[in-house]
Amino acid sequence: MFDALASPHHFLREMIGPTAHDPALKDYEQWWEQEGRAISDSVDRGGTPWLRMFDAAGKRVDEILYPPDYWRMLKQGYRAGVLWRAFEQDSLLPAFLLIYLTSFYDSGLSCPYTVSLSTALPLAKYGDDRLKERFLPKLLRQNDEVWQGATWMTEIKGGSDLGASVETLAVRDGDMWRLTGDKYFASNAGAELAVAAARPQGGPLGVRGLALYLLPRWRSDGELNYTIRRLKDKIATRSVPTGEVELRESEAYLLGGAEEGIYLILEVLNVSRVANSLGSVALAQRTLADALGFAQTRIAFGKRILDHPLLRRQFEERLQGLRQCFALAWQASQLLNEVWKERRPYSERYHLFRLLAHLAKYWTAEFAAQTAKWGMEVHGGLGVLEEFRVERWLREAMILAIWEGTAHRQLLDALEVIERKQAHHLLLAFAEQGGACPDLRQITQEIDQHLGLSAEQREFRWEPLGRRLAQTTAAALLDALPGKHKTAQGNF
Amino acid sequence: MFDALASPHHFLREMIGPTAHDPALKDYEQWWEQEGRAISDSVDRGGTPWLRMFDAAGKRVDEILYPPDYWRMLKQGYRAGVLWRAFEQDSLLPAFLLIYLTSFYDSGLSCPYTVSLSTALPLAKYGDDRLKERFLPKLLRQNDEVWQGATWMTEIKGGSDLGASVETLAVRDGDMWRLTGDKYFASNAGAELAVAAARPQGGPLGVRGLALYLLPRWRSDGELNYTIRRLKDKIATRSVPTGEVELRESEAYLLGGAEEGIYLILEVLNVSRVANSLGSVALAQRTLADALGFAQTRIAFGKRILDHPLLRRQFEERLQGLRQCFALAWQASQLLNEVWKERRPYSERYHLFRLLAHLAKYWTAEFAAQTAKWGMEVHGGLGVLEEFRVERWLREAMILAIWEGTAHRQLLDALEVIERKQAHHLLLAFAEQGGACPDLRQITQEIDQHLGLSAEQREFRWEPLGRRLAQTTAAALLDALPGKHKTAQGNF
Amino acid sequence: MFDALASPHHFLREMIGPTAHDPALKDYEQWWEQEGRAISDSVDRGGTPWLRMFDAAGKRVDEILYPPDYWRMLKQGYRAGVLWRAFEQDSLLPAFLLIYLTSFYDSGLSCPYTVSLSTALPLAKYGDDRLKERFLPKLLRQNDEVWQGATWMTEIKGGSDLGASVETLAVRDGDMWRLTGDKYFASNAGAELAVAAARPQGGPLGVRGLALYLLPRWRSDGELNYTIRRLKDKIATRSVPTGEVELRESEAYLLGGAEEGIYLILEVLNVSRVANSLGSVALAQRTLADALGFAQTRIAFGKRILDHPLLRRQFEERLQGLRQCFALAWQASQLLNEVWKERRPYSERYHLFRLLAHLAKYWTAEFAAQTAKWGMEVHGGLGVLEEFRVERWLREAMILAIWEGTAHRQLLDALEVIERKQAHHLLLAFAEQGGACPDLRQITQEIDQHLGLSAEQREFRWEPLGRRLAQTTAAALLDALPGKHKTAQGNF
Amino acid sequence: MFDALASPHHFLREMIGPTAHDPALKDYEQWWEQEGRAISDSVDRGGTPWLRMFDAAGKRVDEILYPPDYWRMLKQGYRAGVLWRAFEQDSLLPAFLLIYLTSFYDSGLSCPYTVSLSTALPLAKYGDDRLKERFLPKLLRQNDEVWQGATWMTEIKGGSDLGASVETLAVRDGDMWRLTGDKYFASNAGAELAVAAARPQGGPLGVRGLALYLLPRWRSDGELNYTIRRLKDKIATRSVPTGEVELRESEAYLLGGAEEGIYLILEVLNVSRVANSLGSVALAQRTLADALGFAQTRIAFGKRILDHPLLRRQFEERLQGLRQCFALAWQASQLLNEVWKERRPYSERYHLFRLLAHLAKYWTAEFAAQTAKWGMEVHGGLGVLEEFRVERWLREAMILAIWEGTAHRQLLDALEVIERKQAHHLLLAFAEQGGACPDLRQITQEIDQHLGLSAEQREFRWEPLGRRLAQTTAAALLDALPGKHKTAQGNF
Repeated sequence: MFDALASPHHFLREMIGPTAHDPALKDYEQWWEQEGRAISDSVDRGGTPWLRMFDAAGKRVDEILYPPDYWRMLKQGYRAGVLWRAFEQDSLLPAFLLIYLTSFYDSGLSCPYTVSLSTALPLAKYGDDRLKERFLPKLLRQNDEVWQGATWMTEIKGGSDLGASVETLAVRDGDMWRLTGDKYFASNAGAELAVAAARPQGGPLGVRGLALYLLPRWRSDGELNYTIRRLKDKIATRSVPTGEVELRESEAYLLGGAEEGIYLILEVLNVSRVANSLGSVALAQRTLADALGFAQTRIAFGKRILDHPLLRRQFEERLQGLRQCFALAWQASQLLNEVWKERRPYSERYHLFRLLAHLAKYWTAEFAAQTAKWGMEVHGGLGVLEEFRVERWLREAMILAIWEGTAHRQLLDALEVIERKQAHHLLLAFAEQGGACPDLRQITQEIDQHLGLSAEQREFRWEPLGRRLAQTTAAALLDALPGKHKTAQGNF
Repeated sequence: MFDALASPHHFLREMIGPTAHDPALKDYEQWWEQEGRAISDSVDRGGTPWLRMFDAAGKRVDEILYPPDYWRMLKQGYRAGVLWRAFEQDSLLPAFLLIYLTSFYDSGLSCPYTVSLSTALPLAKYGDDRLKERFLPKLLRQNDEVWQGATWMTEIKGGSDLGASVETLAVRDGDMWRLTGDKYFASNAGAELAVAAARPQGGPLGVRGLALYLLPRWRSDGELNYTIRRLKDKIATRSVPTGEVELRESEAYLLGGAEEGIYLILEVLNVSRVANSLGSVALAQRTLADALGFAQTRIAFGKRILDHPLLRRQFEERLQGLRQCFALAWQASQLLNEVWKERRPYSERYHLFRLLAHLAKYWTAEFAAQTAKWGMEVHGGLGVLEEFRVERWLREAMILAIWEGTAHRQLLDALEVIERKQAHHLLLAFAEQGGACPDLRQITQEIDQHLGLSAEQREFRWEPLGRRLAQTTAAALLDALPGKHKTAQGNF
Repeated sequence: MFDALASPHHFLREMIGPTAHDPALKDYEQWWEQEGRAISDSVDRGGTPWLRMFDAAGKRVDEILYPPDYWRMLKQGYRAGVLWRAFEQDSLLPAFLLIYLTSFYDSGLSCPYTVSLSTALPLAKYGDDRLKERFLPKLLRQNDEVWQGATWMTEIKGGSDLGASVETLAVRDGDMWRLTGDKYFASNAGAELAVAAARPQGGPLGVRGLALYLLPRWRSDGELNYTIRRLKDKIATRSVPTGEVELRESEAYLLGGAEEGIYLILEVLNVSRVANSLGSVALAQRTLADALGFAQTRIAFGKRILDHPLLRRQFEERLQGLRQCFALAWQASQLLNEVWKERRPYSERYHLFRLLAHLAKYWTAEFAAQTAKWGMEVHGGLGVLEEFRVERWLREAMILAIWEGTAHRQLLDALEVIERKQAHHLLLAFAEQGGACPDLRQITQEIDQHLGLSAEQREFRWEPLGRRLAQTTAAALLDALPGKHKTAQGNF
Repeated sequence: MFDALASPHHFLREMIGPTAHDPALKDYEQWWEQEGRAISDSVDRGGTPWLRMFDAAGKRVDEILYPPDYWRMLKQGYRAGVLWRAFEQDSLLPAFLLIYLTSFYDSGLSCPYTVSLSTALPLAKYGDDRLKERFLPKLLRQNDEVWQGATWMTEIKGGSDLGASVETLAVRDGDMWRLTGDKYFASNAGAELAVAAARPQGGPLGVRGLALYLLPRWRSDGELNYTIRRLKDKIATRSVPTGEVELRESEAYLLGGAEEGIYLILEVLNVSRVANSLGSVALAQRTLADALGFAQTRIAFGKRILDHPLLRRQFEERLQGLRQCFALAWQASQLLNEVWKERRPYSERYHLFRLLAHLAKYWTAEFAAQTAKWGMEVHGGLGVLEEFRVERWLREAMILAIWEGTAHRQLLDALEVIERKQAHHLLLAFAEQGGACPDLRQITQEIDQHLGLSAEQREFRWEPLGRRLAQTTAAALLDALPGKHKTAQGNF
């Protein structure tokens, strides 16, 4: 089993068995080994890219100055099929597998792919024929002319409470709408197409007053439709340009009904939470693989440090944790693939998915961050030197832990779907399809009791229970995967 | 109690009560608030300083090009008494209190102070009169002409197994020795005086062949006595220049006997481990204070995020953890102050200290890293932006977790002193002076059983037990401090 | 004479003799030698400062994150009197002398002082009593609470042809005006007060439609009155933050009449052109001083490179060029001091000044750039290493050559004032007050002939003549200064 | 003629007519337009590359961490034939043409090509068969496995007076030599093979005691044969890693006789001076092309700034200067191609070449620097913004002006070959083969007079004469080229 650590494709095969996507994954991994790794290193080393706002003639252009290598790396994933395969095969799974593989090599690069997917899916689901005809084929191109998507919700007042923080105003203008406002965390700034949350003029306050719009980079007259105020200096994910984006009467198209916007927004977040979970697992795998490589080489007290019993035990436990996390993320992926086309009123299957997605987002990111921290410690002093870049994985992991909602948010959202939909019972039933899950059954009962507390106390005392729920679910779900029988005690 | 979070001096008073050092601490804190904070920010933002190796005339100078602000900040601590007070008052405690305070504001800056102390102490203890007369007054100056010290042990092969990795050779040359070798992690590179581990020519292999030398920056003829190959790009602690240092027949003076070098080296590490523990607690306090400030300001779902029950509970638990960690680090400080002048054969008190020091180094750094990670999450998206520098504390914490020995190393060294000296019983007796400690007594018994395992299994299964030992000791020791009765549930 | 090169104050005394300002200059120079030099180095090394747009609460703040050292350095000049002395003594000369001295040490730092002066002067001259009472005392403070000024004209379409490029619109709003537009090269972004060119609504097109406004940083209600879109990454002058500034219905106050704005703008430029000339001379002095220091130290072929005849001759010629340039800039300063309070219709003295100012701006910047380039060559390979920072002076010089109008612009503007006002005859008469100037007389005649050409040919053939005019004027004016008799052939 | 400015290949065809190398040049230029330009931009933006001294196992590796793009860009020139064509066609001219073209796009990248050529040529000329067989084919590979060369002479005391400054000691060791010393400006650090100046043990002092050695990167046992102390932070030429290189008993092979080393060293410099001249012309062409592009776009006072007569005249004059400079550099290239195989005693043709090479190195670099400075001014304020990178060309030009000897050095070396070999008469005769050169004849006579002065005065008064000699020679030589009839007054 340890053999698979250094190869994401190998690990996926161990965990889910052979699939029709193996050739594509194999080719893509080969590209990363031969070319991509070095590019990803140098992009991270290069830091935040430059933003050229104006050309020499004084025209606003908002060009993002990555090295050419970056664009090659970026386009490789689109060519490999991170978008077009999902539509050609009518399945999100090939996209998620490619995102897993990407994340092993460059955690941040998964973001453009994910937000592009999160743009294409609502367009396909809610767009009218004219919109779909006009924009969808551009996103599904198999060559370097492919368009990218983006999902812009958060504004300066924060990302958790969108009902209060989104102030971007949408005003109808014939078939179109005009959006005016500032998006504060706009990932994949520069994308040719975005979905953006805004508030249709005259609508209700709060979360019910939100709608989701499709927003192209260029106006009908060829001018820029949004401007980038600046790119943000993040500690990691330098493979995705995150910017502050200014909308000024920007042309946009409503998706779905204006009154159901919040549901569309949450559906968009479903995709990114699942992708974030897979990316977290892949990052943990990478960290573990790098630490293993080091521990196999470094000598102390006369033997490889891997052969020191305390460290060896840590490796075994981390590997088991990795497999559990993968099971959690993968089951969330499969469920999303089942339910993503649903519209309100949603099925129980959808609520089961939501609970699983919150647990997966929370627990895989926590595992990735802890593993990255531990991986630095395995490297000793080298772990804190920029030269060796072991520390990069912790930087990346911290972003995964925060993007798409922190642990606090996921725990509370999980509690909410439990309170409203009794989703913990749906989860238990789902897990028990693969056999008895006594630990999970025990926790389910504890949760039932917990729900009898006052609202304040339910929240105040929830964290330890929620944490155990996530961990136990992960262990239970691993049993349903082909990879379950693999032992962690292999020779290495 | 929460009120004290924003002030390290206030927190110290809460925890240990008033001391004679309060005026000095108050003045020093005031300087930090008025001037130091902004300097520390800008030094961290500036990244690794430049090293000017040659002057325009082609003469090797190895000048470290910090901004002038840096030197002001650095000298402030020396003036405040981080060295001279320890000698004037014949107590390490004022030094440790000042290091705590420094670490609240600039975690890395404690390093120069600590290694200067770690240079002055062995010089005072083992140096002959001529050496002491020549060098000690320079380290104890109360003005900006003060000399700095440094402790250089680690070479390229690693820092844990010094017996195998130190290859620097020492050759006798009359009264002096000549050292030749490369030090790979040389903190406070540029110091006027260092203690360095080397291997006297013709001595035994392994750890018994090490000796400790005093090494000035300039040779007797005024030339550079060591050169700096480069400064290392670290992820944090940018307030201390860490370099690779080249010794080439460098003039040096033996401290203690050539055959007892490893004991002197370990005594040097005693100081830095204790300082690292205090620094970790101070960093955790800072992180908690910053997170509190943010949580008091940020609004979500209609109230301050601090007033969300889940988050509030986390604050309360973290504050309790902080107080326990402080107790652990402070008791280690006090014990070191008692035993640091001992020579072999060491007393039981010394072995008790060693166990406590390993537990403190391990547990406080772990707490600091986890608190810093959590602090980033509290800040949500802002936590990963370089602009807000919340992420700095995690970078700093990771260095504290790795410097002076990682968690693995501390756990194993703690096990060793338990195996050899039954130090866990010494610890229990020490803790019970303040009253019954049932949890610690329980663990002590478990350890006794654990010691019956095979050597391999003792190490393989040690981590969870060692972890509980650290945590339980911290809780037990808190009861002995004035701060024990403070509740965490204050209004804030 | 060479002795004076290393000290701007000494050089000024040599050139203009003792003045009442000597004590202030001496103190200020001493501060630079003791503290300022190292600060200036580190600010340049630090590159473009950060701009913190938002605080943690999401409020727009536009804070410029220089190291604390920067602010100390900046305030030092204001305390020394670069603003208040001009008003207290009713003379621009102390301001110009302090600017000269500043520029020797930090070319870019003169910019904040100059633009603050350029803000205070039109306010004093054209502001009504209420405006003056409200704002002027803040600019003239002698402590660190002093306000800074700024002069914002240029927009994205360029700075030469303001009539076409200024698009900022001013709309009357009671006593105030509201300005909306973007300033592309806004030096001293962050200043508490600015003068800005804008176009009153409904006014004529072109240059006649411009007016000059006073614009505070904060609105009457305490909010930011302008925002900084970004700070510009310049190759030098890192001691002044140059930004792109966004005006959005920003509160402003009209200075002078709306129909005479262009004259006020040109009067503002008068000040900065003269300051730029002095700064160029000071920079050339600095470069020459540094090159001299190196040439006195470096040995090649058995002697100091300064003693190689070819190089020695270059030093002598450059020193002579420096003195001539100083004469040019100083006479322009003195004339401006005479005429700056004039209003239209301007006197002949004013036109004489304008010609001299164009020649000075042109020729001193050219001399500074050439000297800086030569200084790098004197240093050989060290000249291109960032470590030695010799190259900084060329970067600084290139900005001086471009700011406030390039050589092309100055040459053409000089031609214009010659064509319109026969200013070359005024110049000749002025120069001949100090004795016969045969070369200048000769050129004056050639210019008379030149004026007979077609407009196209006048411009096409003007450069060599204009260049000789500048150079010859500089030589002629040197004769009127106390420093004229100093020989360049001193021992050094 | 202006049409050719934007294409180096087009310009070469205009100037020297069609050659057999046109297809190779065309392909190479096409690669630059499609891929190379953007890579070069990003490498310059990226600054000094990282040097990874040690791998994770603690082994010294000295790996230079450029982005992968860099290596693609670098290898492209080798594949295009910058080395192998010179040997396959037994002519330096294709190499020089490719270097010209390279320099148009990336001035610094010509350095690796030039020093590789400067390594291959002495190896081919002076190496014994075993050395040639072992190393030459590796340098001439046509694929990405090609080895690179390097030429390391300069040490910390300076590069002009090698007789005094080279202190590297060479000690014989069987067939090999062992070199110990530090090279301070080691361009193309990391090259697989270098030629290095050293001082054979026991030889005479001064310049006669120097010898030239071939030095591989790896020792016979596979270990590193030299280490890189650091890479130098240069203001430009970031496409070549310049380092400080440490030789420590490094294996090396003597080239030629130990007593004739200085001649071999000068022969190496011949190649780089010619390449530097071509590179300077190419850089001036690039600057002019960029300025032209801007002047065709920018509007001021109602018309393109190119149509302003003063600026238009500058363009015409600069173009003429460019053509003259090219003639100078190209004739030097052709002469070197004739004489490079000569051994002592050298022919008159060789001395003619030397004079021409000094004049070309001097004058083309001066022209490039002045043109780059002017190009920045044409761009106005944009010229000093890092975003537009117009300023890059001045940084590059300053390095060209200093590398391989500054103007001072070239002027004095030209004077020396005139004094010793009457080379000015050889030059006149050479130029007059293409027709009468009255100006050059006039200067030749003035030089004859000049030679009657004392040694001190000859040097003291030489610069203006030497400058006119260079300029007049350039003008005279242009008449011998096909491009001579092209007028500068074309439409553009």
